[in-house]
Order: sequence, then C-alpha cells, then structure tokens
Amino acid sequence: MTLPTDPAENLAALIRCASVTPTEGGALTALETMLKPLGFLVDRPVFSEDGTPDIENLYARRSGNGPHLMFAGHTDVVPVGDEAAWTHPPFAAEIANGEMYGRGAVDMKGGIACFIAAMARHVEQNGGPKGSVSLLITGDEEGPAINGTVKLLEWAASRGEKWDASIVGEPTNPDALGDMIKIGRRGSMSGAISVNGRQGHVAYPQLADNPVRGLMSLVDALLHPVFDKGTRDFQPTNLEITSIDVGNPATNVIPAKALATFNIRFNDTWTDETLQAEIHNRLDQAAKRKKYRQGKKTPVDYELVWRDRPSHVFLTRDDKLIETLRGSIKSAVGKEPTLSTSGGTSDARFIKDYCPVVEFGLVGKTMHMVDERVAIADLETLTRIYQRFIEDWFGQG
Amino acid sequence: MTLPTDPAENLAALIRCASVTPTEGGALTALETMLKPLGFLVDRPVFSEDGTPDIENLYARRSGNGPHLMFAGHTDVVPVGDEAAWTHPPFAAEIANGEMYGRGAVDMKGGIACFIAAMARHVEQNGGPKGSVSLLITGDEEGPAINGTVKLLEWAASRGEKWDASIVGEPTNPDALGDMIKIGRRGSMSGAISVNGRQGHVAYPQLADNPVRGLMSLVDALLHPVFDKGTRDFQPTNLEITSIDVGNPATNVIPAKALATFNIRFNDTWTDETLQAEIHNRLDQAAKRKKYRQGKKTPVDYELVWRDRPSHVFLTRDDKLIETLRGSIKSAVGKEPTLSTSGGTSDARFIKDYCPVVEFGLVGKTMHMVDERVAIADLETLTRIYQRFIEDWFGQG
Ligand SMILES: [Zn+2]
Ligand SMILES: [Zn+2]
Repeated sequence: MTLPTDPAENLAALIRCASVTPTEGGALTALETMLKPLGFLVDRPVFSEDGTPDIENLYARRSGNGPHLMFAGHTDVVPVGDEAAWTHPPFAAEIANGEMYGRGAVDMKGGIACFIAAMARHVEQNGGPKGSVSLLITGDEEGPAINGTVKLLEWAASRGEKWDASIVGEPTNPDALGDMIKIGRRGSMSGAISVNGRQGHVAYPQLADNPVRGLMSLVDALLHPVFDKGTRDFQPTNLEITSIDVGNPATNVIPAKALATFNIRFNDTWTDETLQAEIHNRLDQAAKRKKYRQGKKTPVDYELVWRDRPSHVFLTRDDKLIETLRGSIKSAVGKEPTLSTSGGTSDARFIKDYCPVVEFGLVGKTMHMVDERVAIADLETLTRIYQRFIEDWFGQG
Repeated sequence: MTLPTDPAENLAALIRCASVTPTEGGALTALETMLKPLGFLVDRPVFSEDGTPDIENLYARRSGNGPHLMFAGHTDVVPVGDEAAWTHPPFAAEIANGEMYGRGAVDMKGGIACFIAAMARHVEQNGGPKGSVSLLITGDEEGPAINGTVKLLEWAASRGEKWDASIVGEPTNPDALGDMIKIGRRGSMSGAISVNGRQGHVAYPQLADNPVRGLMSLVDALLHPVFDKGTRDFQPTNLEITSIDVGNPATNVIPAKALATFNIRFNDTWTDETLQAEIHNRLDQAAKRKKYRQGKKTPVDYELVWRDRPSHVFLTRDDKLIETLRGSIKSAVGKEPTLSTSGGTSDARFIKDYCPVVEFGLVGKTMHMVDERVAIADLETLTRIYQRFIEDWFGQG
C-alpha cells in the first residue's frame, strides 16, 4: 500500500475538493482516505445549532504508548472572489513555475497535507511515533466558527481525550518559511456604544442635546491615552473605532442618537474582565466631562453593549513544545524563527484551554487572495520540519 | 365699501386658503382683494427655476409723497402634520376660547392680517400714510426659498423700487406679545467633511489608516475651543456636528472613509469669508496633529465642501426704525420688548441688502405644530402696534 508521503499529492487532492465554508466538499473524506492507512481511527462528528449551517468535522487518533500530540486545522476555505481573475482555476491544483495554485493552498490545506506527509514518512521510516497523535480538523474556521473547533474539542474531551501539546498548522510566516512561530494571540473584543440625545433645531442648541458631542467625549476616552505600551511578549493593546453612524440628512437639525462600534485587540496586561472594567470606567468618566457639551449638566446618556464572544488573550509557556519546534525549523531552514503573538485570532484561542498550543505553517502572503498558491519547495520543507518535530517531541529523533 | 379693518376676519379668509408650499391656494388672491380698496397697486410675479416648482408671489404698493416702508412676509404654510390630531381643522379658522385655530395662524398669515387691518384703520381714520407703503409677500418661505423673496426683491428693485425701512411680520415673540423684536440674525453656513483612509483588518492597524481617527482630530478642532464669547448684540457663535457617517458593518474591518456634516450659526465677530478661513485653518492644523493617529506621519487626507448658500450675519442699526417700533409696542402692552438676534434665519437676511429691517409679529409658540392658533386679543393688540408704528414712523401720530 502506498502511504501519503508526498505533500504536493496530498494537497492537490484536498484543493480539488471545493470546500468553501460551510461545504465539506469531499475534503474530510479525502483526509480520511489518507489517514486510515497510517493507523488512525477516524470520527466525523457533525454539529448543528439553530440559525447556523450544520458543519462536518473530523477527529482522527493514532494511539500509542506515550504523550499525546494534537495537530489542529481546518479544511474549509474562503470564497474564491473574482474567479475570472485567477491565473489558474481555484480548485484545479495546477502547478506553474514550481507553485501549486488553489484556494486553501496555504490557508490551510497545505499545512494539513504536510503534516500527513510527515506522519506517513515517520510511519514508513520509524514505524510511527510511540505516543499518540491526533488530528482535530474543522470545516468551520472561516465561517462563524460555532459548529467547529469549540464543539469538536468539547466532544473529544467528553470522550476522555487529553492532549499534551498542540500545533495549529495556520500560515504563520509573513514572507518566508521559518520566519515565525505564533506562541500566543492577543485577545479581541467588540462593543457598540449608543448615545441618546435630544433632537432639535441647530439654531436652538440649548433646547436640544447633540449626541455627537457626547459621543466625541466617549470616543476620545477610548482612543486616548493608550491602554498600555505592550509587554515582553505582546504588541501594545490597540482599539479601533470601526464605525460611527448618525444618519441625519438635515443640515439644520440636531440629531437624537449617535452610534459607534469598536474593536480592541489586547495583550496579557489585561483579562476580558479587567479590560471591560477599564473601558466602562473610561466611558463613565468621559460621560461627565464638559469639554464638548456646552454646559450640559447631566452626564452623557449612553449604553455600551458587548458584541459576540470575547477572544481571550493567551501565551503559551511550554518550553519543550516551543524549543522543539524552534529546533526543527532551524535545522530545516538554517535560521531562528521569531516567536510572535501578533496578528488576528485563530482557533488556537480555543485549544489553549485544553493544552499548550503553538502555531506554525506555510507562508501566508497569498491567503484569502486571488491566485492563492504555495511553492512546492515549501511543502517539502514544511513536511521535513513537521517530521523532525514529531521525532524530537516524542524523543525518537 | 367696507375696509379690511378686522384682523380676525382678514386672518380667517387667509387660513381658509390651503396654501401649503408651493401651493398659492387662493391666499394671494384673498390678499389682493383686501389691498385694492386701500389704494394698493398689486403685482403677482411668478418665478421659476429648473428643478423647483413655480412660485406665485405678490408685491403691492400704495404710493405717497414721503419715505417708503415695506412690510414683508409669506402666505405659504408648512404641512399640517397629523390632521387627525388637530382639535379644530387646520384650514377652517374656527374660534374656541378666544383663539383662532389654523395652519399659518401665527406663522404668519396672522401678521399679514394685522398689518392690513392697521393700514385699513389708518386709511379710514387719517386717509392713510403720506409716504409709500408696500407689501412684499412670497409663497416660498417655508420651501427652498429659491423662487421667493430673493427674486421678488430683485424684481422690484429692477423696476426702480427703493425702500427706507422694512418690518418682517414673522412671529418673534417667544411667550407673550411684545416680548421681542429681532434686530438682526446670526449667519449660518453648512459644510461636509470627508476623510479618506485606507481599509484594512483591525488586527493590522499599521497596514491601514483608520479615517475615524483623522475625523476625530478634525471634529475636535471644530468643537473646541469656542469661536467667540458672543458680542454686545449676539449670542456666541455655535457649531453643531449634524451627522457622522461611516456605515461599516464589519467588526473586524477598519473602514476606508468617514464623513461628517456640520452647521455653524455665527455672530458679527465674523463674515462668511473670515469664518470659512478660520475653519479651514483649524482643520489644516488638526490634520497635522498626532494625538489619535498612531504615529501616522502624513496629515489627515480630508476634503471640506461648503453646502448651500451661506446666510450672512446682519445687525440693523437704524435707530428711527427700532425706536419707533419699540415705542409702539410699549404704548400698546406697557412693557419694553427685548432687542434680540437669536434664533434661526428668516427672509430678513435677504431684505437687509436693500434697507434696514426688523422683525416683529405674533407669539411663535404654536408655529409649525398641530393646533397652531392665535389669541383674538393678540390680533387686536398687534394691529394697534402696527397702526401706531405706521403713524409714528411717517410722523403722523
Ligand atoms: Zn486559516
Ligand atoms: Zn414664517
């Protein structure tokens, strides 16, 4: 039997499945076909929730006597965008100039293809790791992420699964393979502020209460001063006002209501709770300020509603995990990867509640874009990095 | 022949004409019927402009040998609003508890009805003023005001008409007849600011340029510090932000563009030109400020567009006009009226380019509202004030 040792072949099979969220598109079945000959037991739990599409997920475990490593990722992909603009079709896996084109090539069917190839080579060369290896693969990472990783982790844990460490195969490298390991992520929270004023004519501001004036005080307090200057491991916390909306077309009317929405990316200076308290405090103080308010004596009448679930900040401090991965990268590419906590959120924010987690995969430059593609050489290098990591982490190198 | 000496009868005839802008509704014809027996020559010029409704206007002159007084006003009225909510129908001129109900009762068919009654009494009692009296009445004050007073003044002036003073019969009294003469008006200008930023993901603000941050700097500079503390005759200049609009629904996206609109009511510290220069200067300085801009080195990329025509600020300094009116009011109601420049704009802003102008009429409390109404006693008092004013101003008292 031929094992899936070629990452480019694995990836081509996955790209040819048009698995745009929430469609499985055959991608998990293709994975299952690769994993079974390697000794994995494969489960395909489907999760549902009112108002969201049902999502297929995959959990595969190859059991052994020793520690348990989890590789996590997703086979769903973002839409292709302007299909006519692609140099090669997005679901054809065509190769040109040493690069394979296709939606998901780097985000992140490529990472999965390499990890499977690494396992296949390890099985072929050493009989596979002595401990346990599992793949936790969702079809809902690029969507609302409701029927994906969170439920898959709960489902597996409820069946007694325990993990010692996890690698997420997202494309973490900005420019070249080996640039960057993510060892944590900033938290993220979104809020909406509405200010109630009193409508009136612009010629009689004393009879009205312009909510834009109140909102100016509040927004000022969100933007200034900075929340912190960053920590050893993290960038400074940053808040962006994503929208302000009043919608008043009349040039001589003071509006009744003004809305603002914001998102904050925060570091380990804060927890969800301390940061929400800080923001409430800033707004309450600002509501009393008179700077813009023309002698109005009552505080700004505002309401703050937190939106969505917050993403917790996390930082992985597992030296064995980080140092083993760093060593594998250095031996393959000859340079030290940066340990970073920058960028957006990923499913690692859910995994960190179960075991230490780091993220390392391909080069992200073309992710979510037209002509997403991966260098065949990168697939080979990442496979070698993953294989070396597996050997070293299980102590079989 | 019976002369129109009863202001309540005159007003009832006018209210029964449903002259909601831009409809004449018979109101100018009713006026013509009242004015002709008093010796007025009546013209009914109609003005048109592409994209606006044709508007009927009226200019009536009773010529004499002496100075020329103009009474200005409008017979058009605002819509009735919720007709079912009216206690008495809006075009029926019904009287209850000493008050006449109807749209336009105070704004400002009532003022016109009183002025005509005053003229009729003067003609009956003294043979009319020795000088000239004209009525300049538009049907486009409550609408876009394009085919109204501005064109009517130009039309009359081009026929050689010259005036020595003008009274506008708008409802100037906040609470009781005799409260307030308007001797000037603040200017008004509106502008729209658009800020161009660069769209991006909230996790990577350094790759984007959030236009809301730039707009915060600009709006701060418009609201703070105050433009002036007011002058002897005027309230402080005041700027209101009437809308801010971004329209970004995505909580994780930094938007590309942000818009703000504002209106400024300004006193005689400023001219249109000096105030526009001040605002441009404030915005240019603010565009360079770094407070909210996360180390961005280029100034805020913004554009300011002035909207509509500015209304010029004006203050009438004609002592004879003001003191004669003040005396007439004091003799009728026994108290000194306040000389004010507060409130919104009126057609006086156009008349002031031709002759000194003041405004005095009924009590404005119910104007533009359901159940607009006027006390019959007020109609009688205002008629006596106007008659006394005519007598005194022409030196026949
Ligand atoms: Zn991804
Ligand atoms: Zn009016």
